[in-house]
Parts: sequence; C-alpha cells; structure tokens
Amino acid sequence: MPDLRPVFFVIGLMVAVLGLLMFIPMGIDVAFEGRSWRAFAVSGILTSLFGGALSLANYTPNPDLRARGAFLLTVFSWVSLSVFSAVPFIMEPVGLSITDALFEATSGITTTGATILTGLDDLPKGVLLWRAMLQWIGGIGIIVTAMAVLPMLKVGGMQLFRLESSDMGEKILPRAASIAMAISLIYLTLTLVCAILYMAVGMSGFDAIAHAMTTLATGGFSTSDASMGGFMDQGADLVGMIFMVAGGIPFGVYLLMTRGDFNAPLKDPQVRAFISVLLILSLMIAFALWLGTEFGSSDNESFWHALRLSAFNTISIVTGTGYATADYNLWGPLAVAGFFCFMFIGGCAGSTACSIKIFRYQVAFEGLRAYLFKMPRNHAVAPLRYGGRVLPEAVVYSVLGYFFLFFLTFAVTAILLSIIGLDPLTAWSGAGSAVANVGPGLGEIIGPSGTYQSLPGSAKWVLMTAMITGRLEIVTALVVLSPGFWRN
Amino acid sequence: MPDLRPVFFVIGLMVAVLGLLMFIPMGIDVAFEGRSWRAFAVSGILTSLFGGALSLANYTPNPDLRARGAFLLTVFSWVSLSVFSAVPFIMEPVGLSITDALFEATSGITTTGATILTGLDDLPKGVLLWRAMLQWIGGIGIIVTAMAVLPMLKVGGMQLFRLESSDMGEKILPRAASIAMAISLIYLTLTLVCAILYMAVGMSGFDAIAHAMTTLATGGFSTSDASMGGFMDQGADLVGMIFMVAGGIPFGVYLLMTRGDFNAPLKDPQVRAFISVLLILSLMIAFALWLGTEFGSSDNESFWHALRLSAFNTISIVTGTGYATADYNLWGPLAVAGFFCFMFIGGCAGSTACSIKIFRYQVAFEGLRAYLFKMPRNHAVAPLRYGGRVLPEAVVYSVLGYFFLFFLTFAVTAILLSIIGLDPLTAWSGAGSAVANVGPGLGEIIGPSGTYQSLPGSAKWVLMTAMITGRLEIVTALVVLSPGFWRN
Repeated sequence: MPDLRPVFFVIGLMVAVLGLLMFIPMGIDVAFEGRSWRAFAVSGILTSLFGGALSLANYTPNPDLRARGAFLLTVFSWVSLSVFSAVPFIMEPVGLSITDALFEATSGITTTGATILTGLDDLPKGVLLWRAMLQWIGGIGIIVTAMAVLPMLKVGGMQLFRLESSDMGEKILPRAASIAMAISLIYLTLTLVCAILYMAVGMSGFDAIAHAMTTLATGGFSTSDASMGGFMDQGADLVGMIFMVAGGIPFGVYLLMTRGDFNAPLKDPQVRAFISVLLILSLMIAFALWLGTEFGSSDNESFWHALRLSAFNTISIVTGTGYATADYNLWGPLAVAGFFCFMFIGGCAGSTACSIKIFRYQVAFEGLRAYLFKMPRNHAVAPLRYGGRVLPEAVVYSVLGYFFLFFLTFAVTAILLSIIGLDPLTAWSGAGSAVANVGPGLGEIIGPSGTYQSLPGSAKWVLMTAMITGRLEIVTALVVLSPGFWRN
Repeated sequence: MPDLRPVFFVIGLMVAVLGLLMFIPMGIDVAFEGRSWRAFAVSGILTSLFGGALSLANYTPNPDLRARGAFLLTVFSWVSLSVFSAVPFIMEPVGLSITDALFEATSGITTTGATILTGLDDLPKGVLLWRAMLQWIGGIGIIVTAMAVLPMLKVGGMQLFRLESSDMGEKILPRAASIAMAISLIYLTLTLVCAILYMAVGMSGFDAIAHAMTTLATGGFSTSDASMGGFMDQGADLVGMIFMVAGGIPFGVYLLMTRGDFNAPLKDPQVRAFISVLLILSLMIAFALWLGTEFGSSDNESFWHALRLSAFNTISIVTGTGYATADYNLWGPLAVAGFFCFMFIGGCAGSTACSIKIFRYQVAFEGLRAYLFKMPRNHAVAPLRYGGRVLPEAVVYSVLGYFFLFFLTFAVTAILLSIIGLDPLTAWSGAGSAVANVGPGLGEIIGPSGTYQSLPGSAKWVLMTAMITGRLEIVTALVVLSPGFWRN
C-alpha cells in the first residue's frame, strides 16, 4: 500500500485551485448579465473549501512522490478534477442530471469534446466559458503530465522523451512545477495570439477567447451548435487549422525555440511526420470529396473549397480536437473509413493532442523494419534508430504493448456499448472517439451533426471511463487498477 | 538473391500433385453423370504437365532450403496452388471469369470459405468435391507449415512451438516430410470418422464426405446454399461442432495421443483456453439470443435451441470455418459486435484454424501482466511463463509485433475496400473475414446469407491478397515482399 497522504495533499491543492477558477466564469456571467453566476459562486465556494480541507488534512511539508505515488496522483487527479468540474453543470440554470454533468465535465477535462448539450448559442456565457476553461486546463495538464511524469513512469514508450538528468530517484513534484511554469507561459501566449486572430476574422471577443482555449487544447467544445462551421465565412477555420496543429506539436519544441533554436520543429522527427501525415491525408480526402458526388464539377474553386473542408476536418480529427465545419458522413465511404481511422493517429507526444500519437507509429515501423530484415537472416544485426539516436528495444516493446492495450480497450468499450444496444457504427465510432479523446463519432446520432444526449446513461458511463483511460495513456490507468499495484 | 532452383523444384512437384488430384473430381463427376468431368480432365492434364516440367527444369538432387528459401517456398506454394486450382472453375460448365475463379480457388486453398457461387445444390458433383478438396488440401498444408516451417522461421511467436532438436541448420524438407506423413494419417482418420457420423445423422455419402473435408479443414464450403442450416434436422450441426473444434486443436496434441499420452489435450495451455473461450462465448451469445427479440419466451426448449444455434455459429466463426445455421445479423447489436470480434480470436497454432490464435492472446496477456507488475516497481523481476515453461521475452515481442501487423493489414484492407466503394459494415467485416480466413462477413451482402458475387472485381483482388497474407501469418508474406529480402 503506497503512502496516500502526499497524493491527497496535492489533489486537495488541485481541487482548491479548480474551485477558485470557478469565480472566473462567475464574474463573466455577471458582466454579461447571465443566469448562471449563482451556480458558479456556490460551486466555487464548495469546491475550494473541500479541496482546501483535503489538502490540510493530509498536509505533507515536503511531498516526495516515488513511482507508485506518481501513478496514483496522475489517475486520481484526472478523476477528481472531472468530478468537481461537474458541480456547476448540476445546478440551475443548466440543471443536468449527475450522469450528464459528469459526462460533460469529463469530456471537457480530458479534452475529448463530446457534448450532451444542445442550444449552445442560448446558454449563459458563464457556462460556455467554463466548458472552454475545462478543456484549456485539461490541455495544459496533459502536456505537463506527458513531459514531466509519464517519461519517468515509462508509460507506453514515453521513456523516449525523458529529458536529461531525470530518473526515478529524483523528486517528481519540483521538476513538474518548473516545467509547468515555462510551458504554461508558452501555452498562454499561443492562446492569446489565437484569440486575437479569431477576433481579426470576425469573432466576438468572448467567442474568440472561448474558441482559442479549446483550439490550443485540441478539445473541440464550441460556443455554437454549428461548431466552427458557423464562423467559416471570414476564415475562422483557417485560424483554427493553424492553432490545432500548434496544439498538436510537442511543447518541448516551443521551449527549445524560446531558447533560440528556431530549427527545433524541423529537427524533431515527430513534427516532420505529423505535418506530412496531415498534408497527405488532407489532400487524399480533398480529392475524394472533389471527385465525389458533393463537388461534381472540376473547376478550381470547388477543389479549393473541398481542400479547405477536408484539411480542417482532417486536422480536427487527427489532433483529436473534434470541431466540424461539415458533416463528413455525407462524403462517401472512403471519407467515413478515413475519418474512422484518423481517430487512431493522434498528434505528437508532449502536446495537447490525444490518441496513439505519431511517435508510436514511427517506433513500431522502425521495430518492424528491423524485424523483417533480421528474420530471414540468422544472427543479422539491425540497429534500431529514432531521430538519429539509438532506439532501445525496450521502447519498441513498450510501444507494441501500448498498441495491443489501446485496441483491447477500444474493443472492450465497443462491445460494452453494443451490449447496451447501440448500433454498430455508433458503438464502434463512439468507442474509438472516446478512447482517442476525439469527440464526435460517425453516423447520425453521435456524428459531427449530432450529440451524445440521447444515449442511455450506462453508455455515457462507459464512454467516460474510456475517455479517462485514453487520456491517461491506458497503461497508467491499468497499472493502478491491477491488484498487484496495491500489494507491497 | 536466394537460390530459386530448389524452390521451383518443390513447387513444381506440388503443382504436379495438384494436377493429379484433379482426376478424383473427374472420376466422381463421371460416376454421378455430372457435366464437369471434361473440365477436370483437361485441367488435370495441363496442371500436372506444367508442374512436372517446372520440377524437371529445376531438378535438384538433394534440395536444401535454408531460411530465405523456406520463406519463398511457403509464399510461392500458396500462391501457385491458388492459381492452378482455379483452372477447372474457368472452364465449362462453371465458366467463371478469371477473377471469380481465382477468388473461389484462393478462398478454398486458404480455408477461408468465402464464395462467389450460388445455386450450389445444382452444381455438378465434381465441382462441389473440388471445392471441398481445396479446403482439405489447404488445411493439411497449413498444419504442416505451422508445425514444420513457421517455428524455424520464428514467425509471429511461432518459435514457441519449435520441436526439440530443430534449428535453422537442419534441413527443412526431410523433417517436413516426416511430420507431414504422421499428421496426414491423423487428419485422414478424423475426416473419415466425421464423414461416417455425418452419414449417421442423415447426410448422403457425397455430402458427408464433402462436409467432413471442409469441417476438419475449418474451411466452411458447403454443398448447399443453406450451408449447414439445411442439415440441422437430424443433428448434423452437432457433429459439425465437434469436428470444427477437433480441426482447431493442435495436431501435435493428437500425435502425442497416438503415442499413448491421452492427457495431452488437458496439459496443453492452448487447448484449455480454446475450449474455455468457446464455452463462455457460446453461453454469452445464447443468453443474448434467448433474452433478445428472437426468442422472447423463457421456457427451456427455446434456451436449448438458442444455445445450439449460438454454439454452432460461435465455433464456426472462432475457428474460422464459416458455416452458418442462422443469420446472426438478426440477433441484435451484441451478437453483431460479438461475431465481428470472434473473427479475431482463431483456434490453436498447429491446427487448421486461422486468425490471430489463442496462444498469441495468452502470450500477450502474460507479457502485459509482467509489464504492469514491473512498471511501478523499479528493478522488480517478473519472470514470464507459458504453460509451465519460461517464456522468452523475444517471443512476447514477436507476438506483439504480430498483433500490430495483423491490425495494420486489416485496416489497410478495409480502407482499400472503402475506396472501392463498399459500405462500412461490408468493408470492415469483409476485411476482417479475409485476413482472418473466416469466410462470411456481416450485413446483407457478404453476411451468412449472402455471397461475394456482387462485389466489384477490384474488391475481390484485395480480398484474395488479404486471404493469402492472413493464411501466411502476415509476417511470412511481408518478409518476402520487403526489398531487403532480395538483397544479399
């Protein structure tokens, strides 16, 4: 049994901060004369008091988390932030059921972006801002977790991104704090630039800030039922594309750039592959759309329009954002199969993007290349390389295990949803979308034009579990759930 | 460049034997006064002459195949047997197009069981027998390949089944021949027992032999459009269940039993897991069916009927046979999701069953157990075990790589089928069914009540490639296709 006191101490602090953050939507709601400020005031007081009390009761002067504590902290923090973020949604005027409120909050904190709310345009500004903030908090949370915690825990090949001088002997918290500061500044700056550009293409100040938060977080919550489709006329989708990609690039690369290494993105094998994949897939879908039924004519304008729609929605699904500017269910079978598979790509490790992530494919293909080369040659040596450095076999092993676990989690989720009675397209695309933290699924119910509102409560619980498991890179959640973890 | 002469020598012999075997359906067709004996006579003469000539031209007194030659032989033999088996289908009276004939032959030799023929009941007996023989030959072929060749090539974890005293230095052919003799006798005996039991429950002698061949081979071609459903009244499905399971058990276990070790099946970890999985899944689907719409009443009789339907179709899909006694598309979403997943299980290694196979799941789970145990504990040691023996990490690695490749092949196949324009359910279930060598897919077109006839020619070529790749355990095909293989 690991020592839980430092874990509860840190989680108490996080919950207290979350409670204090609730006063921001409260203030905005008052300013916009909304109806929800009371809900945020009450939730903010309750949450910060509970968090403070939990922290005080477990006060640890110098919290020192080793491996097991770090696993617990990572899992518990995501779960407890999801729970407490849901409180304002339960109260009037939103008045969701507990299941629905938790679904919306979990989908926010995990940056999934699946929603059960409709009539977004008429919701109080406080509620819309809170949804955006949840994704923004989740986004920075996952960057810090991916940079400071997961590499030390060696989760699913993330040990590849261990920074120099880090190892399990070092204290995890001070290190996480110092990285968090630098990264937070970069994250904030990018969000502000994105918001300014959204305003420049015609969004109101409020919409611009809310969308900037969910764009950088590759989250996908919008302030409008039409998602980003409602803002396309003046080019908000073009701004969105740039900053969804920016959110999917490793924040360590930005850190290097602030230190003067402006070639850092070009030198990073993940970034190169990520950009190439987005270009190829956008062009592929654009051609399918252009040649297909939707755009029968072959003049230039319609190709560019097809490319614009294709690029936006491809970037949105690959990065796991989940905004939509069109219902790609209508783009024919290749597009449907394509968007289904895109969910399983993901962005770069150390970014806000979700899912399997580009580097795992690179590592797996490098492992297979060596494997296929060695097999017909006894005793042949095929050294493994990644980005110019030697790739340890343990990393390939860990990555292949991750793939196995990812698809197992995906299949189990889909089977549970099928048992509940969802049709195959909804069950399989919903399961993939939740585990990969994308947001929309395929088909009429949960596709880009639908919502998760009509699903049975049990399906929502299955999806929430899948979202958190996916966001924690599966392995982290399973480690804590395995009985051996709790034995000494 | 490996020495191709011994490879062509052996393939020539195989093709010549295939040609001689064509005289069996010729004889049967004459006996039943069928219309197809001419096709088999001509095909038999052409095929045996071509094979004999190829063999003579590459005569090698003492063929010695090392690793690369064995890879080539395995891949080329499956491809060339598929091509030559198709010849009788092209001729009158069947008169298929080249694509359709190759599809039917490939589906037969790989024991997939997907068919493009309808009106089976009215086909000449020679044609029906040839289809059954193809699966029967494919079945014994894969057992010998899996026991004698793949373990030495270390394909996808198959090195786990290396028999004592075998290694790459040993000559592969004499060893394969001695195993092949013993196994063939067992295979023949089981087929005969199965045929006798099929006759005992009312099948004609011809139907009994044809079905016994495709049951033991877990192939699934039938002599009737109603598949096994037409023979259920007197219990042919019960005989079928027993012998589909028998076909999915490692033939090495039977070999041990003939040497007096009657506990061999109980001691084999694969067999134990295989039987347990079949029991659990059959019961699960039976309950879903019993509680579902199809069998609303809860009296005993309908539960037993549900269990009988569920067990037969579950065994048929898990082993990759592909017979059907009902259209499980109508059994509700759980059954559809279930049967989709069942395709990816497979039987035991060293049997006629296809797909991923039970032992790979056992190895992967054992690897994950150790991995999840070790992760939160630095330097902890968790020895890997399989069936009471130490499991080398290289085998886990190889198995996880196999999973990755399997699902990659599956996804690429499904995307190609989607590009061709198949709907999602047909594309994804058809891809899974082909890679896993099952036979039927899901949905109206290629489901248990449909056929592959109406698919576009390009889709048939994609599916054929997937069938052969799947039958060769993916890795074998990829090794030969990788450019490095041909370099020295």
